[in-house]
Amino acid sequence: MSQDLPFTLPALRAAYAAGMRPEAVIALAYARLDATGDDGILIHDARDAALEAARALGAPDDRPLWGIPFVVKDNIDVAGMPTTAACPDFAYLAGADAFVVARLRAAGAICLGKANLDQFATGLVGVRSPYPIPKNALDPAIVPGGSSSGSAVAVAQGIACFSLGTDTAGSGRVPAALNGIVGLKPSLGALSGTGMVPACRSLDTISIFALSTPDAWEVLSVAQAEDPQDGYCRPMPAPRLAPVPPKLKIGVPGRDSLVTDGDAVQAASFQATLTRLRTIGAEVVDCDFTPFHEVARLLYEGPWVAERTAALGARLIERPETLHPVTRQIVSAGLSVTAVDLFRAQYRLADLRRLCTEALAGIDMLCVPTIPRFVTCEEIAADPIGPNSLLGTYTNFVNLLDMCGLAVPCGLRADGRPASVTLLGRAGADAQLAALAMVLEEGPMGATGWDRPPAPVLSGQAGAGELPVFVCG
Amino acid sequence: MSQDLPFTLPALRAAYAAGMRPEAVIALAYARLDATGDDGILIHDARDAALEAARALGAPDDRPLWGIPFVVKDNIDVAGMPTTAACPDFAYLAGADAFVVARLRAAGAICLGKANLDQFATGLVGVRSPYPIPKNALDPAIVPGGSSSGSAVAVAQGIACFSLGTDTAGSGRVPAALNGIVGLKPSLGALSGTGMVPACRSLDTISIFALSTPDAWEVLSVAQAEDPQDGYCRPMPAPRLAPVPPKLKIGVPGRDSLVTDGDAVQAASFQATLTRLRTIGAEVVDCDFTPFHEVARLLYEGPWVAERTAALGARLIERPETLHPVTRQIVSAGLSVTAVDLFRAQYRLADLRRLCTEALAGIDMLCVPTIPRFVTCEEIAADPIGPNSLLGTYTNFVNLLDMCGLAVPCGLRADGRPASVTLLGRAGADAQLAALAMVLEEGPMGATGWDRPPAPVLSGQAGAGELPVFVCG
Repeated sequence: MSQDLPFTLPALRAAYAAGMRPEAVIALAYARLDATGDDGILIHDARDAALEAARALGAPDDRPLWGIPFVVKDNIDVAGMPTTAACPDFAYLAGADAFVVARLRAAGAICLGKANLDQFATGLVGVRSPYPIPKNALDPAIVPGGSSSGSAVAVAQGIACFSLGTDTAGSGRVPAALNGIVGLKPSLGALSGTGMVPACRSLDTISIFALSTPDAWEVLSVAQAEDPQDGYCRPMPAPRLAPVPPKLKIGVPGRDSLVTDGDAVQAASFQATLTRLRTIGAEVVDCDFTPFHEVARLLYEGPWVAERTAALGARLIERPETLHPVTRQIVSAGLSVTAVDLFRAQYRLADLRRLCTEALAGIDMLCVPTIPRFVTCEEIAADPIGPNSLLGTYTNFVNLLDMCGLAVPCGLRADGRPASVTLLGRAGADAQLAALAMVLEEGPMGATGWDRPPAPVLSGQAGAGELPVFVCG
Repeated sequence: MSQDLPFTLPALRAAYAAGMRPEAVIALAYARLDATGDDGILIHDARDAALEAARALGAPDDRPLWGIPFVVKDNIDVAGMPTTAACPDFAYLAGADAFVVARLRAAGAICLGKANLDQFATGLVGVRSPYPIPKNALDPAIVPGGSSSGSAVAVAQGIACFSLGTDTAGSGRVPAALNGIVGLKPSLGALSGTGMVPACRSLDTISIFALSTPDAWEVLSVAQAEDPQDGYCRPMPAPRLAPVPPKLKIGVPGRDSLVTDGDAVQAASFQATLTRLRTIGAEVVDCDFTPFHEVARLLYEGPWVAERTAALGARLIERPETLHPVTRQIVSAGLSVTAVDLFRAQYRLADLRRLCTEALAGIDMLCVPTIPRFVTCEEIAADPIGPNSLLGTYTNFVNLLDMCGLAVPCGLRADGRPASVTLLGRAGADAQLAALAMVLEEGPMGATGWDRPPAPVLSGQAGAGELPVFVCG
């Protein structure tokens, strides 16, 4: 029976309440990992330490993540484990937990290991790693998605209850769509970046993968706290949910401008989700995505690549052979970018931000396809850059515009592949997105075959000293 | 009698109410300009157009700046006048008013001409111009201050009732201190930059010089409005004043860390102002200025110089001989700055911002000497860079930290030179600074010899639909 124990927070808590031991849960996690036969998911397998941590938990207590197994993308420090960022030559033994990891472990969560990624978090495909490439949990012909490939696959396979990824240009959302799970990309600055290897420090955030939105939200609630050591960490509204307001105006790409690269199944699937949104009372309005797409192009074609170059430092000059060839090719472009180029692009971004703000006037949030279409491993082998850029169509602009995002499964497409949309809101609106995602999410949870738990009923009443953060715009 | 008419808003309004014609005021303005014998104040003298505008005003109406003469720094467009930025080869005939100029003229103000400046607003001394150098209104041995040299001198000489400057690193505050007038540097984004030649577009703002704080504040109230064309323009609190709250905590550089470059008279003058602050009930506390000074060094020694390089564009490469030699030397440094350098400096700035925020916790505003000491023309001739940097000690960090500032005259120093402090607050706190400055300001108004009008009594009551913006922190 325990072989089928769903790794969701409600199911794990019920099992613990019924007397199950964390050691058994951790053993089950590794049994599942071994059963996948996929040695690309984890770069560092921490089973001995995890079992030890499970034993050390002792009797159950009321900590919110007591005995909950999770994995950490290998560009985030976990004390006592190597951090590689998928570059073996870069590896160092982390002396301390990243700020967010420390909060999760203090809440009782148990780290199973460090997950594979596109090297230095550069990519949306998950195949730019010198380690074995993790297999997409649903279809090995499809890329696992990146850069948080291992983190997403571990959750989609039911190995970890949740995982940490990072998200600069979509790395916390694209793999969620490709593996049929939830990808929560918080507002920039909500989660501390202390102990994370930067990709683009001004645009990075840690992100959360889970099988369901309520689980992802609970993890965010534990992880979020102000960190005085991180200059990019910001005070944020307390992560508290309130029900979806009765009147909600949602901006979407119009049918004529929707980018699905010719995938009619994907286009139909997106329209079906919009129909569902209307069914639950939302007003769906076409929005001009022109400025959003121009912002997306700025990130990948503009001088922000130099932020990745800055993160790699001397390695790019002194030991380029230690880098993945595609990563090297991309990041080298940043060496020749001048500060003048960057200032000019930042001016253009300021102008585009204003245009996007205008496009969002009166709109509560956006709803977009998380990915335009699925991408195969074969395609990426033939062209490592083009399909990768395509995957970022609806994710690239988000952090440059200081928006939050939540990629949520919406059942199956007509061809049986997972449907996924991303809800996008203004900075600080994370709770609004989560409340709607809980109503919207449906269908299989990754590759697990487990039944989706019923959505929690949200109360409109705020507790003492708390305010509901969901305000109808 | 009209020869002595003070060019303050109360005096001009009284004169107009008594039947004086704007043509007479404009004639008086030019008579005063001619009497200075200083042909360095204005680059473009618009007396014919100004007289015509005065005639066209017709009968008095209730517009807030009806018949008020002002001058405009020559890096801001006035329709029908050339804009040179103090670079003759750069000159173009402006087809339209800058956004702010249009608002002032629509309110009835009359532009006397375009004022001299440090070329491309690069400098704090006022002598980096190919045009005749404006003379300091109080002492020709002292630099006029820059970059808004002509704008400050025109007000200090009683030629214009107010003037527009610009302020990136202190150009709207340093010349105010050197000429004994008020320099209001609003929060970034409060005033539109449309129609202004950028120096560092992300850090620039138009600023206001006047003889008194109430006058400067009225001008700001007219000039401020959101401009959808300017990506750096931001919604700001309505410019509405409320009385100084009874408990006010003001951070200052401690006696041991105060930078006056050995000028004991300046140090004593600053302490005298702090005594006055205590007398009016403020709590004065020593603040650690270390992170503020490091931010200041970032601006002048770091990659932000490339923002000036970006503004000059091809000129620096193709026609360097058209630039002032000192300007060319400074701005050329930006050509070799990489985007990687800039990103790293922006990360450092983010960390320093956090340290500065911590230093400001519980503090309502800062009070600093506007300048460490006076600088002579002779000194600058011998070393064009060093004393210029010194002048920016307490101004350079302000825009990088997104703070607002107001330089206010505080009577005379022991040696008869004007005393000046600058109040600094968080973005949006402009009204708090102005309310305190009105209580604090005293002594001569520039070189005019006119009596300072009594400070207005501020009501704590907000009008219908308005809120008092002065909240005790």
